Amino acid sequence: MVATVRAAVCLCLWLLVCQVRGSYIPQRMNKTIQNLLKHYKISDDQRYDGKPVFSKKLPINKTETKMVYIGGVLEKYEELIGHMLSELPTPRPQTATDQQHLTSAFTPGVGTNTEAGVGDNVRVELKYLLSKIKELKRHHYEEEGKVAKELFSLKKIQMNDIVTQSKALGNLQWWYDEASTLKKQQQIQRQRRRRRRQARRVKTHPRA
Amino acid sequence: MVATVRAAVCLCLWLLVCQVRGSYIPQRMNKTIQNLLKHYKISDDQRYDGKPVFSKKLPINKTETKMVYIGGVLEKYEELIGHMLSELPTPRPQTATDQQHLTSAFTPGVGTNTEAGVGDNVRVELKYLLSKIKELKRHHYEEEGKVAKELFSLKKIQMNDIVTQSKALGNLQWWYDEASTLKKQQQIQRQRRRRRRQARRVKTHPRA
Repeated sequence: MVATVRAAVCLCLWLLVCQVRGSYIPQRMNKTIQNLLKHYKISDDQRYDGKPVFSKKLPINKTETKMVYIGGVLEKYEELIGHMLSELPTPRPQTATDQQHLTSAFTPGVGTNTEAGVGDNVRVELKYLLSKIKELKRHHYEEEGKVAKELFSLKKIQMNDIVTQSKALGNLQWWYDEASTLKKQQQIQRQRRRRRRQARRVKTHPRA
Repeated sequence: MVATVRAAVCLCLWLLVCQVRGSYIPQRMNKTIQNLLKHYKISDDQRYDGKPVFSKKLPINKTETKMVYIGGVLEKYEELIGHMLSELPTPRPQTATDQQHLTSAFTPGVGTNTEAGVGDNVRVELKYLLSKIKELKRHHYEEEGKVAKELFSLKKIQMNDIVTQSKALGNLQWWYDEASTLKKQQQIQRQRRRRRRQARRVKTHPRA
């Protein structure tokens, strides 16, 4: 009972904060997450153990750099929800009610408490979240997501394989040069921008 | 013999291209890599098998996004060379000659063809490359390297653990909102910059 009241208070506070801040989360998404948390239930000790899945406190200043990290987080959410969907029991044949669930706001159904019914609801809800994440990624984080995915694949490099070691050594000149050139280009671009700004200022406010 | 001539021609061509392009690679670094490639020897078929360790052809347009990928590549080079160093035989006690190797340009020594001697030379050369990579990272890719490292750690997420699944679900609202807010902020910044530019143009060239 206490846990339910606490969850309700948390949800209300969250919705209030979202409204004040001007949140981008659709109401249906909020509801869907709250419903799913009832299915994927863990204790408060497990939830607040101080080890978040994705670190929120990264020492990043540049917006574009932060966006690559967020692109990676979205990639991982897509993979995780895909995995959660694959863990559900085999789906029932789709009915008109299921279709309705996909298109309308989700309200927990009455009389759907059978194992298969619960599984189907969870599937509909997870699919909805997956579609929202994919949409956000496609519209705003396409390039960042690709780079993050490429970085994930670098994790697999076989460090003790002589072919990998030799090939990487053979390419080091190229990468070192590329890294230095790119940094230099960025510095030149910034200098040019600064000079253009100064020139404009002189034109607008010429000295007496 | 043919392979040696081919390697020499390749090196000459590379040095020529570097000079034309204005390369950032110190001459000592080039020599060191060529020396090491004699130690980490693989066949041409293995080297040119069409599977590079780090992909050079990424569809990235934004400089900052590309820099995060390169930050990740530098991180991996650091890890790989560290691993290669750990694979070498136990070092001899350091002598004045070794110290000289570390501070002066490297020339393959005469009479160092014993197993331990070769190992020591390779160690000095790998340490030199490692110091160059660390230097480049520290000066120009610090933030990008950190983000890439954080993304590498995301690879380890345990997808089939209910605690991870539930915690990630509980944080989805925060990440979705953060991703949307960041994109919006970037768009607003761009719009402001564009308006400022237009306003300056109007001031500099007022209509008759």
